[in-house]
Amino acid sequence: MARGRFITLEGGEGAGKSTQAARLAAALDARGIEVLLTREPGGTPGAEAVRGLLVEGAADRWVPLAETLLHMAARAEHVTRRVLPALAAGSWVICDRFVDSTIAYQGVVQGLGVAAVRSLHRAAFGSLMPDLTLVIDVDPAVGLGRAQARSGDAGARYERMGQAFHTRLRAAFLDLARAEPARMVVIDGGQAPDAVAADLLAAIDGRGHGQG
Amino acid sequence: MARGRFITLEGGEGAGKSTQAARLAAALDARGIEVLLTREPGGTPGAEAVRGLLVEGAADRWVPLAETLLHMAARAEHVTRRVLPALAAGSWVICDRFVDSTIAYQGVVQGLGVAAVRSLHRAAFGSLMPDLTLVIDVDPAVGLGRAQARSGDAGARYERMGQAFHTRLRAAFLDLARAEPARMVVIDGGQAPDAVAADLLAAIDGRGHGQG
Repeated sequence: MARGRFITLEGGEGAGKSTQAARLAAALDARGIEVLLTREPGGTPGAEAVRGLLVEGAADRWVPLAETLLHMAARAEHVTRRVLPALAAGSWVICDRFVDSTIAYQGVVQGLGVAAVRSLHRAAFGSLMPDLTLVIDVDPAVGLGRAQARSGDAGARYERMGQAFHTRLRAAFLDLARAEPARMVVIDGGQAPDAVAADLLAAIDGRGHGQG
Repeated sequence: MARGRFITLEGGEGAGKSTQAARLAAALDARGIEVLLTREPGGTPGAEAVRGLLVEGAADRWVPLAETLLHMAARAEHVTRRVLPALAAGSWVICDRFVDSTIAYQGVVQGLGVAAVRSLHRAAFGSLMPDLTLVIDVDPAVGLGRAQARSGDAGARYERMGQAFHTRLRAAFLDLARAEPARMVVIDGGQAPDAVAADLLAAIDGRGHGQG
């Protein structure tokens, strides 16, 4: 059986990633493709417990290295128990956030360094990377407004990091996408949800990933 | 001001590390040496929260890579916020468990591999290693008996891993010590506590670490 495709959605808070990930999974399912829809940090009981340490509490609760390692610990659970088995069984995996979030949030904006995060990722996960990464780009003022409107959302700690943080974050994702055009595609998340969904599917089809 | 010495105590469950670490700190303090007595996983509020995820729950709660990364996340908090500042201020640090526990428990016995743990440690902490590591060696049957007698002790999850686990763990610590004789000294933990304490202090003095 052919290995499934591993597709990640990335972007700042309130970019619409979870909504669009669900729509994308439904669209692929309608084509008869088996899809695992999942998210990071999370996706297994252990990883969700680690998520609790990351999305609650004070903004300066963790030093950047500890925060990176916690995201990676949750990733290790998720990748080993869910992502790799699904891909090996031929399923596609649509994952809301993956290593590019760690690079953008902890590596760039929290200051650990892109090289440091990449080196930790390689030491832990070898060459594992998504086949395709869709970056949903929105103005942070719009995204934060949306995110804060979701009361009690689990992303609360990152949302509280402020406008300057999220402006640097947006630039970080765009820089990453520019540096890896073969893997990463930027989608305009300021459009209506139907248009964003259509662009995401077009990006997948355009890369020849659309037929399972 | 001269950097302080970084001394770690290692060994299996019930080896007497915490008791001996406290005695050692008191003996050095009596010589006028400033000492920070601490432990891993733990030593800061964040690291203690991570400790909770590691010492409670089912033995197979984490895949070995996730467990390693959780120990390292706690270590990042502890090293950054407590160990390095204390050493820089000239204090000695006596730490109950450090990277050798991660190598022995996760690398050897849980099967992630010694090379994998060392490579993660280098990616996260560069060349940071203890100046001296004292391995308190006891028969696992004796150590587990002692550990299980401490009701409600936080090491409960590791204690439940069984006799075969702890027999392999003892061999792992002895192998590590044989491979790094310049840094690691094995102390017979089967002796009376006073004799163990005397041997620990003698090992420190024997390495020329005794005068601050």
